[in-house]
Amino acid sequence: MVGSVALDTVETPFGKVTEALGGSATYIALAASYFTAPIRIVAVVGGDFPKREIEFLEERNIDLDGLQVVEEGKTFRWAGRYHYDLNARDTMYTHLNVFEKFDPVIPASYKKSAYICLGNIDPVLQRKVLEGLDKPRLVVGDTMNYWIEHKPKELLETLKVMNVIVLNDSETRLLTREPNLVKAARKIIQLGPHVVIIKKGEHGALLVTDDTIFSAPAYPLENIHDPTGAGDAFAGGLIGWLAKTDDLSVKNLKRAVIYGSTLASFCVEEFSVEGLRDLSSLKIQDRYRSFLELSRFDEQ
Amino acid sequence: MVGSVALDTVETPFGKVTEALGGSATYIALAASYFTAPIRIVAVVGGDFPKREIEFLEERNIDLDGLQVVEEGKTFRWAGRYHYDLNARDTMYTHLNVFEKFDPVIPASYKKSAYICLGNIDPVLQRKVLEGLDKPRLVVGDTMNYWIEHKPKELLETLKVMNVIVLNDSETRLLTREPNLVKAARKIIQLGPHVVIIKKGEHGALLVTDDTIFSAPAYPLENIHDPTGAGDAFAGGLIGWLAKTDDLSVKNLKRAVIYGSTLASFCVEEFSVEGLRDLSSLKIQDRYRSFLELSRFDEQ
Repeated sequence: MVGSVALDTVETPFGKVTEALGGSATYIALAASYFTAPIRIVAVVGGDFPKREIEFLEERNIDLDGLQVVEEGKTFRWAGRYHYDLNARDTMYTHLNVFEKFDPVIPASYKKSAYICLGNIDPVLQRKVLEGLDKPRLVVGDTMNYWIEHKPKELLETLKVMNVIVLNDSETRLLTREPNLVKAARKIIQLGPHVVIIKKGEHGALLVTDDTIFSAPAYPLENIHDPTGAGDAFAGGLIGWLAKTDDLSVKNLKRAVIYGSTLASFCVEEFSVEGLRDLSSLKIQDRYRSFLELSRFDEQ
Repeated sequence: MVGSVALDTVETPFGKVTEALGGSATYIALAASYFTAPIRIVAVVGGDFPKREIEFLEERNIDLDGLQVVEEGKTFRWAGRYHYDLNARDTMYTHLNVFEKFDPVIPASYKKSAYICLGNIDPVLQRKVLEGLDKPRLVVGDTMNYWIEHKPKELLETLKVMNVIVLNDSETRLLTREPNLVKAARKIIQLGPHVVIIKKGEHGALLVTDDTIFSAPAYPLENIHDPTGAGDAFAGGLIGWLAKTDDLSVKNLKRAVIYGSTLASFCVEEFSVEGLRDLSSLKIQDRYRSFLELSRFDEQ
């Protein structure tokens, strides 16, 4: 997993946390860690990054050989405030700190990693990560509106080497200038990825391939406390399941989307990464089964 | 079915129709007519209402005993223009005409109707319709933001006599002042209806009862030409299926939601009611099966 490791200050109508563990790589790695081990992380933090969080990540079997620690620097910090319906947020500040000059270096021990998740960083760096690897079996990539708007050419190059792209609905529309999500997904397939997964937040997710469309429901949570990291937890659950099963059939991709949704649903129930700290196979299986229940109807 | 029968002028990025058949009762009745017969309509038109549309409705086994024709009046007319992503529209004009003084009268032949659909009209009139009926087996009701804002007390009274309410997501939030749709649905259940169905447009629908939540996918149409009437076609498909099967189990309610979604999906593929003019059981069954395919994943 490559991405950010950050300290987030988040306020929602339900509370606030200050300098809590966050960052795309963190959420992806934690979510994936419930499926397979070891999870290998490529990221950067400053000398101020809390030791207890390093220990926590290690306890979750996350290999930190690729986590650069810039002793004299400060960890990436982000602060945001969500609106009352949690569907929109304002960024209060973004202090990139050591992340500003992040240059991902792949440790030799990571070279043979088969399942790669490119968290939301500069598409140029995403491609650089891949160059440091021996032919991975699957590359799942994320991006965001900032890169779509500011580095469109570089992003197009990186899309060519992604097998699966995970986007939210507004990013999908922005990237393709096509309001219809299915048409938009088909346009993205022309650009490289064979599989397009569109996250629709409270409306679930859409999996689109050349010849399949799968609509995954959202878990109808009555208590969402903090949406931060949901998309990354989704990606982590997805790739964790795929790595565990090593099965890239459409049937198994659908299951992976539900596992992604499952981890995202746990993520948003608590602030920061709290919802991903103490899960179990049993809890995850239970919720997977709830997704089945939730969306099942019969032939008639 | 009670509601409006109208002549709609609609413009979308894909074309335009002028004074085409529309109105909530029309869409509901047409959608339901593919499941059961006769469909009985209570509505009003002016002397200018096209004879060929009367004939068309009769051909679809729609009983027009309750359709008042005010010879010297003009039919309700509405004109709207959709934005490029079809998720928003502007009303160009609303000429209520004969609909302004609509006073629904239930013909004696309608008295024993068992399945009632109260389309989106003044909640006071919705209740009046029920008073003209012998204990119906099921009352499905619709409403809209206008009544929520302008006749909240009257609407609350009418909610008490609805068994099933069909709303869209923004109406649900407006009615309950609760952004979380599941919490909002539970609030509505406290107000009367045992079943709350929330239509989420391109994101499907949510069925909520005291102890069940069902998430129905939207059919991922690549070609939507005119969203007008989708919600009414949904309600018509839903009640049509329930009336046909006379089974109010949760299992069958889920099927009804998918049949509602099926009819809505046909509706939006063409302008005005064109998508509902010439359906068949086979086409409907095929699409129902597509909904199954679309949302099915397995235990693992």
